[in-house]
Amino acid sequence: MTSVNETSRSIVDAAVAAATDAARASVRESYETRAGWLEALAETLDSHAPELIALADDESRLGEKRLTGELARTSAQLRLFASVVREGSFLEATIDHTDPSATPPIPDLRRMLVPLGPVVVFAASNFPFAFSVLGGDTASALAAGAPVIVKAHEGHPALSRRVAELGAQALEGAGAPSGLLQLVEGREAGVELVRHPDVRAVGFTGSLAGGRHLFDLAVQRPEPIPFYGELASINPVVVTPGAVESSIDEIVDGLLGSFTMGVGQFCTKPGVVLSPAGADLAGRLATKVDADAAGDPASPPMLNDRIRAGFHDRLSGLAGQEGVDVVAGADVVDSEERTSPVVLRTTVQRVLESPEVLLEEVFGPATLIVDYDSEEDVRAALGVLPGSLTATLHAAPGEELARTLVPALGERAGRVLFGGWPTGVAVSHGQHHGGPYPSTTSIHTSVGTTAIRRWLRPVTYQTTPDDLLPEPLQEANPLGIPRRVDGQLVLADHA
Amino acid sequence: MTSVNETSRSIVDAAVAAATDAARASVRESYETRAGWLEALAETLDSHAPELIALADDESRLGEKRLTGELARTSAQLRLFASVVREGSFLEATIDHTDPSATPPIPDLRRMLVPLGPVVVFAASNFPFAFSVLGGDTASALAAGAPVIVKAHEGHPALSRRVAELGAQALEGAGAPSGLLQLVEGREAGVELVRHPDVRAVGFTGSLAGGRHLFDLAVQRPEPIPFYGELASINPVVVTPGAVESSIDEIVDGLLGSFTMGVGQFCTKPGVVLSPAGADLAGRLATKVDADAAGDPASPPMLNDRIRAGFHDRLSGLAGQEGVDVVAGADVVDSEERTSPVVLRTTVQRVLESPEVLLEEVFGPATLIVDYDSEEDVRAALGVLPGSLTATLHAAPGEELARTLVPALGERAGRVLFGGWPTGVAVSHGQHHGGPYPSTTSIHTSVGTTAIRRWLRPVTYQTTPDDLLPEPLQEANPLGIPRRVDGQLVLADHA
Repeated sequence: MTSVNETSRSIVDAAVAAATDAARASVRESYETRAGWLEALAETLDSHAPELIALADDESRLGEKRLTGELARTSAQLRLFASVVREGSFLEATIDHTDPSATPPIPDLRRMLVPLGPVVVFAASNFPFAFSVLGGDTASALAAGAPVIVKAHEGHPALSRRVAELGAQALEGAGAPSGLLQLVEGREAGVELVRHPDVRAVGFTGSLAGGRHLFDLAVQRPEPIPFYGELASINPVVVTPGAVESSIDEIVDGLLGSFTMGVGQFCTKPGVVLSPAGADLAGRLATKVDADAAGDPASPPMLNDRIRAGFHDRLSGLAGQEGVDVVAGADVVDSEERTSPVVLRTTVQRVLESPEVLLEEVFGPATLIVDYDSEEDVRAALGVLPGSLTATLHAAPGEELARTLVPALGERAGRVLFGGWPTGVAVSHGQHHGGPYPSTTSIHTSVGTTAIRRWLRPVTYQTTPDDLLPEPLQEANPLGIPRRVDGQLVLADHA
Repeated sequence: MTSVNETSRSIVDAAVAAATDAARASVRESYETRAGWLEALAETLDSHAPELIALADDESRLGEKRLTGELARTSAQLRLFASVVREGSFLEATIDHTDPSATPPIPDLRRMLVPLGPVVVFAASNFPFAFSVLGGDTASALAAGAPVIVKAHEGHPALSRRVAELGAQALEGAGAPSGLLQLVEGREAGVELVRHPDVRAVGFTGSLAGGRHLFDLAVQRPEPIPFYGELASINPVVVTPGAVESSIDEIVDGLLGSFTMGVGQFCTKPGVVLSPAGADLAGRLATKVDADAAGDPASPPMLNDRIRAGFHDRLSGLAGQEGVDVVAGADVVDSEERTSPVVLRTTVQRVLESPEVLLEEVFGPATLIVDYDSEEDVRAALGVLPGSLTATLHAAPGEELARTLVPALGERAGRVLFGGWPTGVAVSHGQHHGGPYPSTTSIHTSVGTTAIRRWLRPVTYQTTPDDLLPEPLQEANPLGIPRRVDGQLVLADHA
C-alpha cells in the first residue's frame, strides 16, 4: 500500500522532473516563440471566459462582474509579459569590450539574465484568476523562461484544474515543451515542492503564518532558494487637517468603497487610517455605513467559511481591546454569519501602547480609524507601523505637511499614493507591489513588468566566440534589443 | 560591571543608530554630491597608498606588488560607482502616465529604486583592500545610498582601522553625514549586527561555514533581511580533446599560474579540472611544478596560520581518499609548514561516488585533476558539480563539443570563460561575480556595477504632485537620466 506521503512525493518528483526537462527545452527556443506561448495562454483564457467565470463564481462567490474584469486583467497581464519578452530589456544584456587600460584590465565580458529553472507558485484564494494558475507569478516566471508548477489553492479546485488543463492544451498547441506549466494539489505536495532540490524559487501570495512557514522551509534547505512571498499588509492611510477641510465627504465615500471592495479581501485594503481627532472620520464613516445598511441590509459573502471565521475571530479580538470602539457593524462583530462593513476607532496613544495587537491585518471589510491630535502623533504612529504594500496620503494641494509625510510613508511601504485609494493594482511597467516585511519577503515586486527579475539570474560569458554566445549577446545584436555597451545604454531597433 | 556582551551590544546599538540617522540625511543630498563622496574615498586611498600598502603587507603577507594593484583596483572601483550614481540607470526610473483604456486602468505611476537603509558588510581576509573596509560591497552600498557598518576582518585589524579612519575623515571633508561609514570589530559584534532590527541587509565574503551561520541568523530574524553571501566555489575547468591537441602546454602553464596565484587564496581559483585521461594533464602539471620547485624551493606564506592549518587539514583529508593520488607536492601534504603547489588526481568515477568529499573547496594552492574517458563522463561529472562563481572551458576553435558545454557550464556557474583563467575579476558593467549555492546565496552579483541592486528596493508613487516627487521621477527629468516612459526606454542627455 502506498501512503499519502509517498503518493505526494512521487507526484512532486514527476512534476519537477518534467519541469526540469522543460527548462532545458525552452531556453533553446527563440524569445519570439516564448512570447507566443504567453499569448496562447491569454487567448485560451479569453475564449473560454464564460465557462471559466461561471466556475470561478461557483467556487469564490465573487460575482460575475468582478470576475469578468479579473479574467480580462489576467489575459492582459499575459500579453504584457509577451511584450516584455520581445522588447528584451529584461535580459539586462551588457557588453564590455576588451580594455587593457582599465584597472584591473577588462577582458571581453558579456552579461545577461537567464532563467533560474523550475519554480513553484502558490495560488491565492482571493484572486482566482489574477493570482492563481495563470496569474502574475506564473506569467512573469514563464516570461523569464522558468517552468512553473502551480500549487492550486484549495478554495477553487475545479477552476484551477480547468485553467491548468486549458493552459497545457494551449501551450501544446503553440509548440511549447510539456512540463512548462503543471498543477499540483494539497498542502503536503506544496511542502514537498518547496523542499525539492531541483526547485529553484517560490512565489507565494497568502497569509502571514502560512507564508512564513514556507519561507522558513525555503531558506532552511541545504541549498536555500529565493522565496517571494506576499504576506500581510495593513496599508495605512494618513488624512491631514487640510484634507479634512477640503474634502472630508469624498474621503468618507472613497474609504468606504475601498475597504469594502471585494468584501475587504484585497491585500491592498486600507486597514488603518490616521485622521485628526476633531474631524470625527470614524463617526462620519459610521453614519454612512448605517445609512447604506438601512438601504441594503444584505451581508455579502466572503470567499469561504474558513475566511469568514478568521474575519470574526480577528474582529472579536480587536473589538475586545481596551480603548478600541466599534462604531459601525457591532452586529457583525456579534454574529458569526454577518460580514457587512465594520468601523473601529482608537487613538494614537493606544496604538503606541500595543502596536502588535492593534496593527495586525484584518482580512475582511473592516478598518480601524486612529484619531490623532498633532503632527507628533502622526510621526510617532508611522514609527510603529509594520511594512505595507501601500501607504496613502490625503492632503490639500500645497499643504506643507505633505512634504515630510510622502518620504516618511515611502519608508514603510512600496507604493505611496497621493490621494486615491490603494485597492485596484494596475499591471504596468511603473507598478510596484511589494514592501518591507511582513508585506513581502523580497526586494522585488510581484505585480508589474519588473516582477520578471525574480526568476532570473545573471550569467557572464568571458572571451567567448560569437557563435557560442546566446543571441542577446552576439556582437551584431541580431535581436535588436537595448543593451549597455562599454557602459553606455544603447537603444537598437528591432531587426 | 559591564559584560563583553553588553559592551558589544551598546557599540552595535550606537553604530546602527548613527547609520539610521545617516540614511535619512544622505537621501536628502543630490546624487552628484553622493558621487563626490565615493570619489573622496578613492582619493584618500590613493593619496595614502604607501602607508596603507605597508600596513596591509605586514598583516597579510601578500607582498607590495599585489597590494599595489589591489589598492588601485579598489579606488578605481569607488570611482566606477561614482559614475554609476551620476549616470542614473541604477534608479530604474519608470513613468507610466495615466491610461484609462488599459485593463485595468493605469493611474499615474512612477517607480524608482531607493536605498534599503543601514547595511552591514563583513570584510574578507584575502583581499585586504578590494573586499574589505572600502571594497566592492561598501562601494556599491554607499553608491546605492545605504550607510555601511563594516565588520572588520580579524586578519588585518590595523589596516582596517586606518582605512576606516581615513574614510571617515574623507567623508567628513566632503560634507557627508557622520555615520555613513563605520567599523566594528569582533565576532560577537558581527552577530549582533546581523540580528539588529534596524539593519536592512548584509554583505559577506568568507567561508561556507561562517557564511551559512550568518545567513541562517539573517533569515530567522522576526523580520528577515537579504543576506548576500559569497561562500565557497571550486570553479571547474573542462579541457576538451581538441584543446589538448592544440594547446596542452599553454594550458599547463596557465593552470599552474592561476591555481597558485595569491597562494591559491582566491575565490575564483580553479579547484577541479576535467581533462581527457590520455592527456595526462596531472602528470604534465606535476613535472612543471617539480621543475619550478627545483629552481625556487621557497614556500610562499599564506594569509595567516589559521588559514594555513585549514589548507593542510583539507588537503590531508582529500589525499587520504581512495582513488585520489597526490602527483605533486606530497611534501606539502606531509608538512604543516609548507604551502607550495599541490596537484591531486582522480577519476570521474570516484567523483561520482563521493562528490561531497571530493568536490569541497580547498582554500590554498591545490587543484584536483579529474581524468575522464568520454563525453558521457564529462556530462555526468557536470551533473554533480556544486554551484560555482566561474566555470572555464578550454576547447579548440570550432570544436563541436563546445556548443553543448558552454550552456551546461552556464547552469552551474555565474561566469563562463572560453579559454583563459578565472582568477582576476574585472570590475565592470558586464561582470558577474555570483553563482548557484554554495558559491553565493543570491541572484545578484557582488562585483561589477550591478552589485548596487542588492542595496535598493523599489518605491512607486501614485498620482503624486510633481513637486512632491523625487527628482528622478519629475516630469521634466531634471537629472537627465535614462527612464522608461510609458513602456519605452528613453535616453536623455544630462542637463
